[in-house]
Amino acid sequence: MPDPRGLPEGQWEPPEIRWDPLVGENVVIAAQRQDRTFLPPADECPLDPSRPGHPTEIPAPSYDVVVFENRFPSLREPHGRCEVVCFTSDHEASFATLSPRRARTVMEAWVDRTEALGAKPYTRQVYCFENRGEEIGVTLHHPHGQIYAFPFVTPRTQRMIDQADAYAEAHPGGNLFDDVVAAELDAGTRVVARNDHWVAFVPQAARWPFEVRIFPLDRVPDLPALSGPARDSFGPLYLDVLQRFDGLFGKPAPYIAAWHQAPVRDAGVRARFSTHLQVFSVRRAAGKLKYLAGTESGMGVWINDIVPEEAARRLREVR
Amino acid sequence: MPDPRGLPEGQWEPPEIRWDPLVGENVVIAAQRQDRTFLPPADECPLDPSRPGHPTEIPAPSYDVVVFENRFPSLREPHGRCEVVCFTSDHEASFATLSPRRARTVMEAWVDRTEALGAKPYTRQVYCFENRGEEIGVTLHHPHGQIYAFPFVTPRTQRMIDQADAYAEAHPGGNLFDDVVAAELDAGTRVVARNDHWVAFVPQAARWPFEVRIFPLDRVPDLPALSGPARDSFGPLYLDVLQRFDGLFGKPAPYIAAWHQAPVRDAGVRARFSTHLQVFSVRRAAGKLKYLAGTESGMGVWINDIVPEEAARRLREVR
Repeated sequence: MPDPRGLPEGQWEPPEIRWDPLVGENVVIAAQRQDRTFLPPADECPLDPSRPGHPTEIPAPSYDVVVFENRFPSLREPHGRCEVVCFTSDHEASFATLSPRRARTVMEAWVDRTEALGAKPYTRQVYCFENRGEEIGVTLHHPHGQIYAFPFVTPRTQRMIDQADAYAEAHPGGNLFDDVVAAELDAGTRVVARNDHWVAFVPQAARWPFEVRIFPLDRVPDLPALSGPARDSFGPLYLDVLQRFDGLFGKPAPYIAAWHQAPVRDAGVRARFSTHLQVFSVRRAAGKLKYLAGTESGMGVWINDIVPEEAARRLREVR
Repeated sequence: MPDPRGLPEGQWEPPEIRWDPLVGENVVIAAQRQDRTFLPPADECPLDPSRPGHPTEIPAPSYDVVVFENRFPSLREPHGRCEVVCFTSDHEASFATLSPRRARTVMEAWVDRTEALGAKPYTRQVYCFENRGEEIGVTLHHPHGQIYAFPFVTPRTQRMIDQADAYAEAHPGGNLFDDVVAAELDAGTRVVARNDHWVAFVPQAARWPFEVRIFPLDRVPDLPALSGPARDSFGPLYLDVLQRFDGLFGKPAPYIAAWHQAPVRDAGVRARFSTHLQVFSVRRAAGKLKYLAGTESGMGVWINDIVPEEAARRLREVR
């Protein structure tokens, strides 16, 4: 449908993508976001359904799952696109409290938008993610995620592609992702949960106090390539994992959930890549957060205070 | 001198270095740090000089600059080493308020420790840095920095080395660092300050709201390779930059200051590398911080809300 919000086209400096030659990575300069909505009171939430006298981003009295263009985008067409996904019209809910049916609808929204945005000529990679919690800088509490269409392959994804390529060269017939997942299933000590189609484990070299990777057992490059049964069974596993996160310290966990997907259109890369969800919390203890300070932000060396096997054990024991 | 503190050797799990095969980077697992001293009251500061009835980490009634092994190290011999550098015995001071003479002494401490730690057989790279401000997770307010001896080349440094190698291949006789510095001097729009031996500029693709790189005008691989005059003239420039950071929002800026140095012993790399200081604040506006959320922490894509030329202009106009 046409966007009825009357976004202020053209009054901002458009976002810019700049290349950092010292490390060979793109950086996005997006000045107009400085004015974005910042922790509004609950009765002014722009992601609630519209009600008489209070029009919001969503021109409807209620909704299931809704996707729209971000009013304060870091990337704008034709150089990319930023969308918001509202998981529910219930302001007080969270992803962890969604029903499995609703989680399935969110999965379908991710699939649909990955397909639609992936078909745009400017898109190299589609990124679905959720930031949850004021502790990581979330500016709107309403349960929602975001979808970015990047016009470049992101640095983290490029690293994975390079590693998968090198691995394939060193291990003819082998696949990096398959072998990592198989090793975690073999070891078992870091597995948090699994079902017929997915496994959730704390990675052997976890960066974050509580970090879980959720891989499909049958490797596919992105969400649209998942089978129907895999799409169906993701929600129940993910809800279980999120509820364990919230149970760790007896209060809602601040977390980032990041869908790793293969770049679009590059058949060679897609044949080797495995989509997966990375979900991690910055809370390392009750009342203590993990900060990215000098070693992480300066040198890219993560220091994790929690042994991964111990993190997995604590997540398994929740509930 | 021998360490009189009686550190509890052996009662902890030793730190572990684990390899993340998905991105090809080392992660440090350092469990015992969970118990580290956390924001003690001012009269229990372990970095103050010792006084009767209150022994601290420093067994002396006052000091200029002092360096000692971190009681809660992320890396321990023979796999690395973590040291603390106290910049002054004055608990209420900050680096920005040091005298140029004292800043020169800190430079000498960095040089000495880089030499001493660089000579250890386990060391690949020496990293001098400062975390400043509770906003980035600092647990002790006393003005101090840290020095790590890493047993591997850090991911960020390796990226720079790879970029410098590729640049040298593409531009015979050219050097990536020299050309970046020359381009910034030419453009001038992002230069914040300079003197006869150093230039401070906001990088063209800055990741952080306020980020400055301070490069020596005569390229050297690390701090011990700086000439005497270059060592002398660093402090005045750096104090000026830090005072500008503190002046931006009328209160002490939370910042990370990171010395990039070449790996030790690799002559080929050292011939191409340029040591430099990266200093950046996470404050993007009065009362607002830059968080590393889904795009940064998930995909390695930094989104910067402040245009670098504007950041440079504001830093130039402070005072």
